[in-house]
Amino acid sequence: MKIGLDIMGGDFAPKATVLGAIEAQSHLKNDQNLVLIGNKDLILPILQEQNFNSDHFEYIHTTEVIGMGEHPTKAITQKPNASISVGFQLLKEGKIDSFASAGNTGAMLVGSMFSVKTIPGVVRPAIASIAPQIAGGHSILLDVGANADCKPDNLLQFGILGSLYIEHIYGIKHGKVGLMNIGEEEEKGNMLSQAAYSMMKETPLLNFIGNIEGRDLFNNTADVIVCDGFTGNVMLKLAESFYVITRKKGFKDEFFDRLNYEEIGGSPVLGVNAPVIIGHGISSPKAIRNMVMMSKDMIETRLIEKFKAAFN
Amino acid sequence: MKIGLDIMGGDFAPKATVLGAIEAQSHLKNDQNLVLIGNKDLILPILQEQNFNSDHFEYIHTTEVIGMGEHPTKAITQKPNASISVGFQLLKEGKIDSFASAGNTGAMLVGSMFSVKTIPGVVRPAIASIAPQIAGGHSILLDVGANADCKPDNLLQFGILGSLYIEHIYGIKHGKVGLMNIGEEEEKGNMLSQAAYSMMKETPLLNFIGNIEGRDLFNNTADVIVCDGFTGNVMLKLAESFYVITRKKGFKDEFFDRLNYEEIGGSPVLGVNAPVIIGHGISSPKAIRNMVMMSKDMIETRLIEKFKAAFN
Repeated sequence: MKIGLDIMGGDFAPKATVLGAIEAQSHLKNDQNLVLIGNKDLILPILQEQNFNSDHFEYIHTTEVIGMGEHPTKAITQKPNASISVGFQLLKEGKIDSFASAGNTGAMLVGSMFSVKTIPGVVRPAIASIAPQIAGGHSILLDVGANADCKPDNLLQFGILGSLYIEHIYGIKHGKVGLMNIGEEEEKGNMLSQAAYSMMKETPLLNFIGNIEGRDLFNNTADVIVCDGFTGNVMLKLAESFYVITRKKGFKDEFFDRLNYEEIGGSPVLGVNAPVIIGHGISSPKAIRNMVMMSKDMIETRLIEKFKAAFN
Repeated sequence: MKIGLDIMGGDFAPKATVLGAIEAQSHLKNDQNLVLIGNKDLILPILQEQNFNSDHFEYIHTTEVIGMGEHPTKAITQKPNASISVGFQLLKEGKIDSFASAGNTGAMLVGSMFSVKTIPGVVRPAIASIAPQIAGGHSILLDVGANADCKPDNLLQFGILGSLYIEHIYGIKHGKVGLMNIGEEEEKGNMLSQAAYSMMKETPLLNFIGNIEGRDLFNNTADVIVCDGFTGNVMLKLAESFYVITRKKGFKDEFFDRLNYEEIGGSPVLGVNAPVIIGHGISSPKAIRNMVMMSKDMIETRLIEKFKAAFN
C-alpha cells in the first residue's frame, strides 16, 4: 500500500511532518510505503540531519503550498502544484491509497470532494473526530465541521458512516448510535434533530439508542455520536479547550492524555471514495505519526469498500 | 422587596430548598424578604429541626407539585395550585418581585411567558447561563435552551439582553459580544450565524467583536456569548460534564470550583417582564442560596426596567 502524506501542511511543517514520517516508518511493514508529498529540497536536509536513510520513503516533489488562511476552492484551482492539490491528483489516479495532511482543512475537504468525489448514495461527506471515552475505548463524533447546515438524511447517513468506521477500525459491531440533542425524550430538540430522530428510529441500518446530551460525549453512552457540523465543531473546540486548561493547571491524567489530539492523529473525512485524513494545524511529529497509522488502518480494513457496499 | 422561592422544586426539595432559604436569609437585609412557596406542612418541620425562627420568612401554602418529567404546558394548566403555578400567579399580581425554582425547567419557561409575558419588542426570551472565566470574572452565555430553533433577530436580541445583564449585574459597560461560530472569519458558519453576524455588525446597540469559537467559552474573549438554544444547551452540558470529570479525578482548582453550578445558583430567564430564575434540578442548599442572591441582584438593579427601556 502507498500512504500519501502532505509534508508541507501544518504550522510546524516541514520539520514536524518529516519527523512524524520517520516515527511512523518504524511502525510500518515492508509493503506499507509512505509517500512524502512536498518540496524535496526541504525534506532531504531534515532526513540527513536525523541520519535517516532517505530510501525508506517515496517522494513526490511539489513547489507550491496552500496556506492555512487561503480560500480552499481558489487555492486548489490556482495552485495545481501545491502539495494538497498534487496529493489529491495522485489519490484520484490511484497512485496513492490514502492522503493525509495537517494543512488547510477547507482545501482538504474541497479537494477530496473534487478529486475522488463523494461515494454514490452519500449525500454529504462528514469530518469525524475520535472521542476517547472515560471508561476506555473510543467513540466517533460526526460531523465536526464539513456541514454547518444539515438536513435530517445527512444525520442518518453520518450514523451509518460512523457505525461502519467503528466496526471496521475498532471492531465494535452494532455500535450504539446516539443523536446529540438537548433532552432525552423523542420530542425534544430543534426541527433538525426531531426529524432525524424519526428517520434514525425507523432504519434497520443503525443500532439507534435515541437522544444523548452534551454531557454524554465522553461517558461511554454511545459509540457513534451524530450531530450537525456546527454543533460538532463547537463541541470539539470546547473539549479541546478543556484539555488545554487541565494541562495548563498541571493536571495530568490518563483520560486527559487520551483527549490530546496527538494521540488520535487526525479527523477522517468519511463518505468520499478514498481514505482522507485531516490533521490538526498544530500537529506535532507524534500527531503526524498517528495520522499515518490511521491512514494505514483505513486502507488495510478496506473501509471505503464497506462504505460503498452500504450505500450501494 | 419580596423574593419568591419555590420550595417544592428540585430533586432534593423541600429539604435542600428550605436549607438554602435559611442560608440566604442571613445575607439579606431587613427589607429583603424571602417568600417561600410550597407546602407549609413540609417546610415548618425542617425549620424547627434547624432551630430556625419561622417568622423570618413569609409563606404561601401550596398543595400540588409539578414533577420534573411532566409536560410543561399541561402541568401548569392542570395544576393551578402547584408551587410553580402559584409562584407565577403571585409574580403576575406583583405580590412577589421575582420568582426562582429548581423545578421543571419547561414549566418555568412556559409559566414566565404565560404569566408575566415577554417584554414588548423582545421576540423570544432566552435562558442565560453564567460562565466563569479563567482569568477571572464572569461571562454570560445565551440562549442555553429556551429556543432550539432561532432566527437571526433572536440572536441579535440575545446579545442586547446579555449586554444589559452584565452591565447592571456585573458592572461591565460595553461588554464584548461574541457570536458562537465555527470559524473566526465573517463568512464562516451556518446560515443562521452568517445572517446574525450581518445584523450584529450593523447595530449600534452592541459592542460586537465578531465570531468566537467553542474554545472561547471560558477564556475571557467575550463578556456576552451569543448562540442558539440548541448549541448553548449542548455546550453547557458538555462543560458541566468536564467539571464532573475533574471532580471525579480528584482535581481541585479554583477555576473548576467556579464552574460548579452551585456557585452560580441558577439560569435567569431574560426577556420577560419580571426576574425569573431557573435552578439546576440537583440544586443543593448552596445553589438555592445563590439563586436567591441572584434574584435579589436582578430586583435591586431594576434590570427589567433597563430591558424595557432598551426594547421600547
